[in-house]
Amino acid sequence: MKTLGLGRNEVNKGRIIAGKAIARTVQKEIAAKAARLIQKGIFPKLGIILSGSGPSQIYAHSKERACAKVGIRVETVDFPADVKFEDLKKRVEKWNREKSVHGIIVQMPLPDKVDSARLLGLVDPAKDVDCLTPANLGMLVAGRPRFLPATPAGIVELLVRSQIRISGQRVVIIGRSEVVGKPLANILLLRGKRGDATVTVCHTKTRKLTEISRGADILIVAAGKPRFVKKEMVKHGAVVVDVGINQTDRGLVGDVDFEDVAPEVSAITPVPGGVGPMTVAMLLSNTVAAAAAQTGEADNAGI
Amino acid sequence: MKTLGLGRNEVNKGRIIAGKAIARTVQKEIAAKAARLIQKGIFPKLGIILSGSGPSQIYAHSKERACAKVGIRVETVDFPADVKFEDLKKRVEKWNREKSVHGIIVQMPLPDKVDSARLLGLVDPAKDVDCLTPANLGMLVAGRPRFLPATPAGIVELLVRSQIRISGQRVVIIGRSEVVGKPLANILLLRGKRGDATVTVCHTKTRKLTEISRGADILIVAAGKPRFVKKEMVKHGAVVVDVGINQTDRGLVGDVDFEDVAPEVSAITPVPGGVGPMTVAMLLSNTVAAAAAQTGEADNAGI
Repeated sequence: MKTLGLGRNEVNKGRIIAGKAIARTVQKEIAAKAARLIQKGIFPKLGIILSGSGPSQIYAHSKERACAKVGIRVETVDFPADVKFEDLKKRVEKWNREKSVHGIIVQMPLPDKVDSARLLGLVDPAKDVDCLTPANLGMLVAGRPRFLPATPAGIVELLVRSQIRISGQRVVIIGRSEVVGKPLANILLLRGKRGDATVTVCHTKTRKLTEISRGADILIVAAGKPRFVKKEMVKHGAVVVDVGINQTDRGLVGDVDFEDVAPEVSAITPVPGGVGPMTVAMLLSNTVAAAAAQTGEADNAGI
Repeated sequence: MKTLGLGRNEVNKGRIIAGKAIARTVQKEIAAKAARLIQKGIFPKLGIILSGSGPSQIYAHSKERACAKVGIRVETVDFPADVKFEDLKKRVEKWNREKSVHGIIVQMPLPDKVDSARLLGLVDPAKDVDCLTPANLGMLVAGRPRFLPATPAGIVELLVRSQIRISGQRVVIIGRSEVVGKPLANILLLRGKRGDATVTVCHTKTRKLTEISRGADILIVAAGKPRFVKKEMVKHGAVVVDVGINQTDRGLVGDVDFEDVAPEVSAITPVPGGVGPMTVAMLLSNTVAAAAAQTGEADNAGI
């Protein structure tokens, strides 16, 4: 009981990183950039390819709503679950050609029988605002990123806007997925204030994980395991970013045991309301940047 | 003097990884694969684009000799130092089209005024046997590599053929270059026996480097600083891979102080004769694999 009481008091010491509020600020900035383009007759537009029901419907609709708020036009094509690859391909190719479409999203998950990697590979890298094409991931490794993938970029933006220093810090990432862990490691190794970190990537094959995670100044958890990270795994005073979002019978929870860990840290993101809102904001940012780049307005729009 | 004497005795305990001998074995295997293709009338061929004198000449010639030994044809086009970008571009495009050319190398360094990144971006990814195009680097991050870049692939091959376990080990890489550190980190994070490592990347902005490098089961050094790593930076019994090659008044030396470090470790690569020979071998391997893939013989050639 004593520990619990102590924990409750100390939660207030651990600063909660206000993902929602920061995302709102970012969205305001994006709306201003979009407005400058619209004044010049350029209407930033995102095309979303969707197939099948379930989570992909929900994700797509939340992106549509966010676009509407900042002045980005959206066209969603909702294909039936038994869609042929050729039809998806034709839509990608049509939007690749159309000057009025600046960003293209292939909303995951697609039906199992669709070769999503092949479809993604067809998206014009200049319109790949999710930064999922090999060409754009490769530009990132080569140190000349065109776009940054939304979730990793959102994490970095959260840290920077919370005045948390990244350069020279020891960052430990738990999780080596293609959409979070690996691109995030590559971003944090870039030169500059969003990078210059000493980066360690851990995963299911990692031994002595606690020893490693306790060495982190900034611990970023994308393990996909509800409440996986306990206070023993975190250094006192560290910054913890929770990328997980797990549906449990206690509601949505992250990969970090928030109540257990929060008293130990100097800052922590909540779930929900932490990384999530930033992911959508970064997608909007990429779309407006794409519209500006494709129309030669990158400098004028302040992007 | 005592330390020196001890060092000399103990050097024998640290196994020296025989890069040259392993590279010879790999080259024999490549020659056998090339021979199987040649029997079917497929002559693996590498095109090398070269401009300017100095190191690029030396690198290109050593690749030509290595190709000749394993049965790969080479065509080197040696452009004058004041070559126009358009002429280099035309050559890349010609080789992209020619079915008889399976691999294309843009030999670095090119003259300063040539935009090498732009030129590299023009190479057909299927013929990019150096794995330097964004598309191929991105395939690596996405976990579906087409080729692996030669130096990082050579390092991993050295470890695997020396029966050094990678999976689950803590690997620390010193150096975050686009040709070694970053692609190597991405390879070591792939699934399987060449990956599954817990990977940390350190660089000039890293603080407490000694503390981090001492945590490594496998320490890979690509810092570009002669004899930079001393025994204090290495855990007793670790494996040390030295990617450095520095011309000094004492001759060629690596980034590791070999005499100082060798007594402490369970295995170490020498310089020269360690990673260097493997780099060329991996390039040959990629070229033969490219020839097999482009002619539909990937399975038959045992590649």
